[in-house]
Amino acid sequence: MAKVITLLTDWGNGDPFLATMKGVILSICPDAKIVDVSHQVKKFDVREGAHFLSAAYKYFPKGTVHVGVVDPGVGSKRKPIIIRTKDYFFVGPDNGLLSAAASADGVKEIVEITNRKFMLAKVSNTIHGRDIFAPAAAYIANGMPVSEFGKKMERVAMLERHVAAVLRGHIYGEVIYTDSFGNIRTNISADDLRKAGFFPGKEITTCIAKRKQTCFKAPICDSYSCVEKGDVLLVVAGDGLLEVSLREGSAAEKFKAGVGDRIELKG
Amino acid sequence: MAKVITLLTDWGNGDPFLATMKGVILSICPDAKIVDVSHQVKKFDVREGAHFLSAAYKYFPKGTVHVGVVDPGVGSKRKPIIIRTKDYFFVGPDNGLLSAAASADGVKEIVEITNRKFMLAKVSNTIHGRDIFAPAAAYIANGMPVSEFGKKMERVAMLERHVAAVLRGHIYGEVIYTDSFGNIRTNISADDLRKAGFFPGKEITTCIAKRKQTCFKAPICDSYSCVEKGDVLLVVAGDGLLEVSLREGSAAEKFKAGVGDRIELKG
Amino acid sequence: MAKVITLLTDWGNGDPFLATMKGVILSICPDAKIVDVSHQVKKFDVREGAHFLSAAYKYFPKGTVHVGVVDPGVGSKRKPIIIRTKDYFFVGPDNGLLSAAASADGVKEIVEITNRKFMLAKVSNTIHGRDIFAPAAAYIANGMPVSEFGKKMERVAMLERHVAAVLRGHIYGEVIYTDSFGNIRTNISADDLRKAGFFPGKEITTCIAKRKQTCFKAPICDSYSCVEKGDVLLVVAGDGLLEVSLREGSAAEKFKAGVGDRIELKG
Repeated sequence: MAKVITLLTDWGNGDPFLATMKGVILSICPDAKIVDVSHQVKKFDVREGAHFLSAAYKYFPKGTVHVGVVDPGVGSKRKPIIIRTKDYFFVGPDNGLLSAAASADGVKEIVEITNRKFMLAKVSNTIHGRDIFAPAAAYIANGMPVSEFGKKMERVAMLERHVAAVLRGHIYGEVIYTDSFGNIRTNISADDLRKAGFFPGKEITTCIAKRKQTCFKAPICDSYSCVEKGDVLLVVAGDGLLEVSLREGSAAEKFKAGVGDRIELKG
Repeated sequence: MAKVITLLTDWGNGDPFLATMKGVILSICPDAKIVDVSHQVKKFDVREGAHFLSAAYKYFPKGTVHVGVVDPGVGSKRKPIIIRTKDYFFVGPDNGLLSAAASADGVKEIVEITNRKFMLAKVSNTIHGRDIFAPAAAYIANGMPVSEFGKKMERVAMLERHVAAVLRGHIYGEVIYTDSFGNIRTNISADDLRKAGFFPGKEITTCIAKRKQTCFKAPICDSYSCVEKGDVLLVVAGDGLLEVSLREGSAAEKFKAGVGDRIELKG
Repeated sequence: MAKVITLLTDWGNGDPFLATMKGVILSICPDAKIVDVSHQVKKFDVREGAHFLSAAYKYFPKGTVHVGVVDPGVGSKRKPIIIRTKDYFFVGPDNGLLSAAASADGVKEIVEITNRKFMLAKVSNTIHGRDIFAPAAAYIANGMPVSEFGKKMERVAMLERHVAAVLRGHIYGEVIYTDSFGNIRTNISADDLRKAGFFPGKEITTCIAKRKQTCFKAPICDSYSCVEKGDVLLVVAGDGLLEVSLREGSAAEKFKAGVGDRIELKG
């Protein structure tokens, strides 16, 4: 069985610290396959990290250990935890980073990591990714039962969930992140569109609001190529959520859209 | 045998989608070795992607599966294809991205990917990298014959080729890309230099033209260290193509050079 | 045994050359596990590369081969070398890049790479990373004794070492790099702090000087969370060296600090 360990952090790809996590993992579990999910989560943005993890985790083989380190509270009272779910393991700080993905997969067991036997000999207060989370992930990949790592917990920190609402034919949602293409990713699902009666092909009025509101008309498309280069479209992306796109250009730039902006879809 | 799969995209390294390709690959081929060629191809720039693939593919073990996803037409009529060549497999959209490298290695078989058995259960119209190309690559690495994936094709889309010309002792070429050091990479080969009678040690007049033309004299060197820090040189780079360099500085910045600029070498 | 090979360069993550090193390695050592330490070392900055390598090397399994390519003198007289140390192998140019890490681990054997048998058939003068260092690393991972690669050397190039000084209760050090969080990493060790009588909890005056000097008071903390968001702190980071941090912000930006700036700590 492949021993896959994924890493998600806000550390960037340039500093040498990330490699120390990988070295620690390979020292404990020499045949681990380490995959980077992203290290460009906005610094300290636990919510964005949670979105990234939710978007990626389920494409990995059963048994994959997902490590997340967006950890502004490192060295404080926040607990290092392991969540075992139906098909995966999640390792990281108890600050909400892991809980959306873990809940979606079905939580089976939560453990606080307290057993020093599974940490580096010297645990710093500044880099638990290397000293606590990386070794824990490697031992889990080696088959160590989660219950060995510490005492059971009943619940984990959850981020406030922002769900889209469908009301009298309007959909009220928000921007969850913008990707490197400038696609504006929202929390509006294909299901929300159905409920509101918005089907592919239909031209819709969309309003994006930060302080000021910008509205525009654009079709709901099956793919980016349904409009001309430079035109705006709405499309349900690969993760089942609606995105606002600009064909071969950046919708985020055009509409100056950012995380948390309100999105309203009218008939 | 190592089951090596390389990935080349214009997706950037920050978004979580790339990891989903890797998760899909490891789910199908658990012992795949995944290598990133680059994910920083200029967005939608099929030509740059083709140059990158051409520069890298042949250094990999025989049997390596090279996946390329620079795919502005995703979800449109452009076909998903596999090209089997003398030593490699190439997987990606039929838009010219793969054809230069594949031709250079010697095309043996071309197949349109139509067999749903080798795609994810749910195929989106926005991310064929994950839903079609990644699983195809993994099945190929597992030894699945290319003919199983769909029907044979006779030809693939080719990019217009821009070759350098040697004329009465002048060489006329163009900039194919500029690297992160600011080296200006051209389509002028060592062979073109020989034909024009330009040998290492010789001082040459080079002109770079976008709208305006900039000319300068610089020696053809064997290595970057043949001139002083801050001086310009010409050197045949590791891929056999001529580059214009500035020792320990950026030639691209100095000459404001970019892809497609004309380069003329005079005696 | 895991055959781990790490790569550290100043090549960036966008160009296709890095992948050619990985292809070469996998062609020679198909079961190598390749880990990127960083490819975002400042261009030509051998000293920063040496700091990165020193920060990372010791977290890897014994027998790991560390390849470093920050190589402004490629193609010149500087020698390609292998250093065997107590637990590791280091491969790269003899320009000081490897020597700090290698010395810290304990040098056992130094060899100049001259045996063409362990290089690519065609060695360029511009990219020894691919043509000399990558194949050497792969052969070492395969178990080839270091003595086979060429003739023994007695010493390697060393970078001038900048050590912090403790003098009459003051500590004089310098900035060695700033990380992507904006933490200002210094060459002042936990030991220096002890000698000067600066203990966690103590409020200290710190001065950072480039041309002008900026001084501020901040506590020595055990973790980032000992001050409020936006406040400055001093903390001994995971590598045992003191850093100046701004909680959930960038100290480097606030103090406009950069490599080589002098740091003075007063009681």
